[in-house]
Amino acid sequence: MDSSEQAVRAAAAEAWALMRAIGELTREGEGITRAAFGAGEQVAAEQVAAFIRAKGLALETDAFGNMHVLLPGQQPELPAIAAGSHLDSVPQGGNFDGLAGVVAALAVLVAVRDSGARPRRSLRAIILRGEESPWFGTAYIGSRLMLGRSTMAEIGGLVRFDSGQTLAQHLAGLGFADAARQSRPVFGPRDLAAFFELHIEQGPLLEGQGIPIGVATGLRGNVRFPEARCFGEYGHASAVPRAHRRDAVVALSELVLAFDAFWAGRVAQGDDNFVYTVGKVATDPAQHAMTKVPGEVRFSFNFGATVEATLTEARALLERSVREIEQRRGVRFELGTEVGTPPVAVDEALMGMIEASAAAHGLGSLRLPTVGHDTAMFALSGIPAAMVMVRNAHGSHNPRESMEEADFTAGVITLAGAMERAANAG
Amino acid sequence: MDSSEQAVRAAAAEAWALMRAIGELTREGEGITRAAFGAGEQVAAEQVAAFIRAKGLALETDAFGNMHVLLPGQQPELPAIAAGSHLDSVPQGGNFDGLAGVVAALAVLVAVRDSGARPRRSLRAIILRGEESPWFGTAYIGSRLMLGRSTMAEIGGLVRFDSGQTLAQHLAGLGFADAARQSRPVFGPRDLAAFFELHIEQGPLLEGQGIPIGVATGLRGNVRFPEARCFGEYGHASAVPRAHRRDAVVALSELVLAFDAFWAGRVAQGDDNFVYTVGKVATDPAQHAMTKVPGEVRFSFNFGATVEATLTEARALLERSVREIEQRRGVRFELGTEVGTPPVAVDEALMGMIEASAAAHGLGSLRLPTVGHDTAMFALSGIPAAMVMVRNAHGSHNPRESMEEADFTAGVITLAGAMERAANAG
Repeated sequence: MDSSEQAVRAAAAEAWALMRAIGELTREGEGITRAAFGAGEQVAAEQVAAFIRAKGLALETDAFGNMHVLLPGQQPELPAIAAGSHLDSVPQGGNFDGLAGVVAALAVLVAVRDSGARPRRSLRAIILRGEESPWFGTAYIGSRLMLGRSTMAEIGGLVRFDSGQTLAQHLAGLGFADAARQSRPVFGPRDLAAFFELHIEQGPLLEGQGIPIGVATGLRGNVRFPEARCFGEYGHASAVPRAHRRDAVVALSELVLAFDAFWAGRVAQGDDNFVYTVGKVATDPAQHAMTKVPGEVRFSFNFGATVEATLTEARALLERSVREIEQRRGVRFELGTEVGTPPVAVDEALMGMIEASAAAHGLGSLRLPTVGHDTAMFALSGIPAAMVMVRNAHGSHNPRESMEEADFTAGVITLAGAMERAANAG
Repeated sequence: MDSSEQAVRAAAAEAWALMRAIGELTREGEGITRAAFGAGEQVAAEQVAAFIRAKGLALETDAFGNMHVLLPGQQPELPAIAAGSHLDSVPQGGNFDGLAGVVAALAVLVAVRDSGARPRRSLRAIILRGEESPWFGTAYIGSRLMLGRSTMAEIGGLVRFDSGQTLAQHLAGLGFADAARQSRPVFGPRDLAAFFELHIEQGPLLEGQGIPIGVATGLRGNVRFPEARCFGEYGHASAVPRAHRRDAVVALSELVLAFDAFWAGRVAQGDDNFVYTVGKVATDPAQHAMTKVPGEVRFSFNFGATVEATLTEARALLERSVREIEQRRGVRFELGTEVGTPPVAVDEALMGMIEASAAAHGLGSLRLPTVGHDTAMFALSGIPAAMVMVRNAHGSHNPRESMEEADFTAGVITLAGAMERAANAG
């Protein structure tokens, strides 16, 4: 172990302890609750701020409550290399989604400073608020405001589901009353040459394959129909012959399996970028019966991909399938309002640095797609971005999120190496 | 037109008027409500009794409130030929389900008496109560008690869903306090050589094909799982890869389509005896989300057939499909409690008489399967039975049931001819 890795391991141990302490302070019953721009997130912010100060690092806070730490490089005039993630959690979530990336970024700065290394570019830790969507019905609030992708005029009126108060009121309550006056992005491509986010993997691939580190190949965008319906015709279940049926449940089953077959085909070709889910299904309790042909079924329809072309292909399949099933089954689909986000590409050069860093420390890594994260806001703002995924059991957004300390340490080591590579690159 | 058909037409017109009058008296809002052993059914019984007396026919009432009219034949010692149906309706039903068969049977007796014909065997009209299952949670109460297939000791304690009173209390309230003392069937195979039931078709086949008369090929039995479930595993909709999913909705869709394909295969072979419906489907509102792989789905599963062998085949398909899908998808089905009724065969000779009667009067007829009716109780009691189905729009058990008077008349003509054939047969 070289002295630099030793410093990283020491800082990672302190970061792990900080993360555990914050988890204890923000536990509510079974899970962890750190409300966006609310109590739990603020507890985490205060603990993180105390850690930063205790380490003798300089702390800045922007107009939206995001926190920044700067470790000046040899050429501080160059765009810096940043890492970070978010402090908040979903209601009754786990301790690692978001917070792991925050404390990992701090660990890297502490380790680099303590090891006496002086990279060419400055390093930054960026500690964000309000990433999780359940609170205000929209995601990435801290990073969106900080990067100027939304203004307070646009989203300050959003109401938090549990408090009934607006985002503007919550910011003011935390002492950030000037948020609405922030007229330009806090950071842009001239300030940051790279943004790295360490994050727990939210799927089972690393766990399943016994690999500690993932390298995100892209952030999935999605096409979603939250309130889709299929209309058929109610009828006597024992009396209406097959040719006369307009069965909404049979029709929906065909759509479900058409998409499942499409997905199976992509996977068979070695393409892992697509996902597809019908998470909600319900016939009408006021009208349905075991003895009635179902005349209506409501459902959600949700597909995603890291590549826009795949979304386009799937959208065409949806239109084609709906038309064919409508004709064959005598039903009518109303897909309702479409919502969604575009896929976001990660930076190939930064991906390579992550892989090189992991390899240099004897750590296995696996390329895998991931979902939406604050990283998307940086990438969409023209800041090259990439993600270090860390093995985690039981998914995310639930109290059973589970990360081993050894895997966290492996993640911090990988992140540190990637940031140093980026900081010393041309 | 011969004098006998003239008499039948005249009686059918009076029966139609009686049916319309009863409909007016038992209308509640949009629909017709004649509660089993309750107010609407009793109004219908009183109107029917008044009609019978006005026509100079002898009326008897059994211990369960069913009414009987006898028109003696030349050899009254021989088992009689009977026709009838039920007086009650479902809540907010239509006017024709049940009542059409009651007034048609009366019309035949009036017409035969008025035409001066004297068949060899006696004719009987049997006017039943309590056929519809919503009231006491079970069907065919009047015919079951009358034929000794259930006793008051067994079912007298059943509670009517709307009144909170038991069947025994309702019978007593109508003056039939001796129901529990009836120790033997009112009719058996020694009393009745045939039972015919005229009934509206509850499907769209006659309407669709422009044919007024149907001849039932059998009464569908069914196999039902009212509260089935499929368990998978909840997961992040954008993060869990296909190979790791245990998606309950995709699994159920496969089961739905496996049965739809089975049905399509039977129909392609010209076999119309099978039906299949998943009328109720719901993911768990407390746990599901558009963005979660569904970990559970509840559903009803209901298939029927006029032939027991088809039910056996379908049950084997169900077991095989469940096993295969469980293995392939990593899910688990819990089908829950099975309920159901056996299919009931109708009498081939009586079917032939119905077809011969229709043909003799220039009326088209179509063989088609039907669902459960009082006829099942007669057939299961060893009394040869068959059904005359009459064209009807909009199905049954809803206010839009719709029968044309000309079709009703065609049905009465067909029924009269069939009863006379049976009454004069060896």
